[in-house]
Amino acid sequence: MVEICKVENPSKGERTRHAILEVAVNIASTEGLEGLSIGRLALDLSMSKSGLFSHFGSKQELQLATLDAARSIFIREVVLPALDAGQGIQLLWRLCEMWFGYLKRGVFRGGCFFVAAASEFDGRPGPVRDRIGEIMNEWLCGLENRVRESQQLQQLDENLDPAQLAFEINAIEMGANLSFQLFKDEQALDRGRHGVLERLRTHATPDGIRLLPLLDSGISHGL
Amino acid sequence: MVEICKVENPSKGERTRHAILEVAVNIASTEGLEGLSIGRLALDLSMSKSGLFSHFGSKQELQLATLDAARSIFIREVVLPALDAGQGIQLLWRLCEMWFGYLKRGVFRGGCFFVAAASEFDGRPGPVRDRIGEIMNEWLCGLENRVRESQQLQQLDENLDPAQLAFEINAIEMGANLSFQLFKDEQALDRGRHGVLERLRTHATPDGIRLLPLLDSGISHGL
Repeated sequence: MVEICKVENPSKGERTRHAILEVAVNIASTEGLEGLSIGRLALDLSMSKSGLFSHFGSKQELQLATLDAARSIFIREVVLPALDAGQGIQLLWRLCEMWFGYLKRGVFRGGCFFVAAASEFDGRPGPVRDRIGEIMNEWLCGLENRVRESQQLQQLDENLDPAQLAFEINAIEMGANLSFQLFKDEQALDRGRHGVLERLRTHATPDGIRLLPLLDSGISHGL
Repeated sequence: MVEICKVENPSKGERTRHAILEVAVNIASTEGLEGLSIGRLALDLSMSKSGLFSHFGSKQELQLATLDAARSIFIREVVLPALDAGQGIQLLWRLCEMWFGYLKRGVFRGGCFFVAAASEFDGRPGPVRDRIGEIMNEWLCGLENRVRESQQLQQLDENLDPAQLAFEINAIEMGANLSFQLFKDEQALDRGRHGVLERLRTHATPDGIRLLPLLDSGISHGL
């Protein structure tokens, strides 16, 4: 069972909302956001439907709140622990390592929550798809900004297109997620790490290369 | 509406089965394989449930037959048209171009049928997930065998790990699929093509490089 971020000194209402979203994230992680319904949640939590309705007025509101709860977990498990790596190429690589670690540790039972949600909702226009797009975009833009920062620090080739490298890093993460989830193949995580590290080393300046592990290195923070 | 491969001189029963699967593939492509039910199909086809049961005894049989129908479409749209490229690195690249073309043309309304199916079923053990795994593996092994062939023809670096390159090509395709479906961003297809071509050119021998288009080339069979 994953735990979502805690509010300090929560009111009773906040504690209840928190408990509901913890269950909702776990259901959505394996059965999809469409698998969430007020009725299903009420049953799992032994609550009345009207009690749940007072927190989330509709299935769509519940789905949006569940997405934001999953985003908080992702920030706690992947983004915040990477920040001690400083900036530039070291931060970029640490974010990627933390991402593979998040997959390996099974933070969400169904693999990457957002890849699954994107696949489920990409053909269903509306606020839920839009919110998934915003969250995926936050990650992509975060990677792209770290590439730009690495270029400013002369750690990555200045002629490189930051959006292209961010796209490729994210794609390799998605490929690792699919193979790991579908084939239960842990080697997929090694292949993913290797693929990302090789991209970074290919485009790194001599200064950048010194800050990265070797390709066959066993160093793996968060794995 | 996609058309699945036709049988020569089909019997009435085969024609009906064919018509059912054409509708089933289209439903599953946007709503998922779980969106398929004998009842839903009977309604869409104005057939009786018992008539449908005579072709597919259960929802699971229907899902498996739908997967195989989608596989036939993929072979017709991606694999067969690439075969005139001969062998080695030219065939490998043509397969990838055809894959991006299949995405751009919207052969399936919901993007790549198998990426969506894998994401939907990776947490649901059983014959449907196993069949999705077999089909994804066919594609991955096909790519890997083309890499090996290119190495034997001295078109790709002999020290390269064929499974790693196949993994990365497949991952980039998945990344392009996600961005194209979620953001309706055609640039994702260009990023995908660029990413794959750059991987191939990085690992190609001088003989191999001569057989590939330039990185910024507008040549794009099937797009």
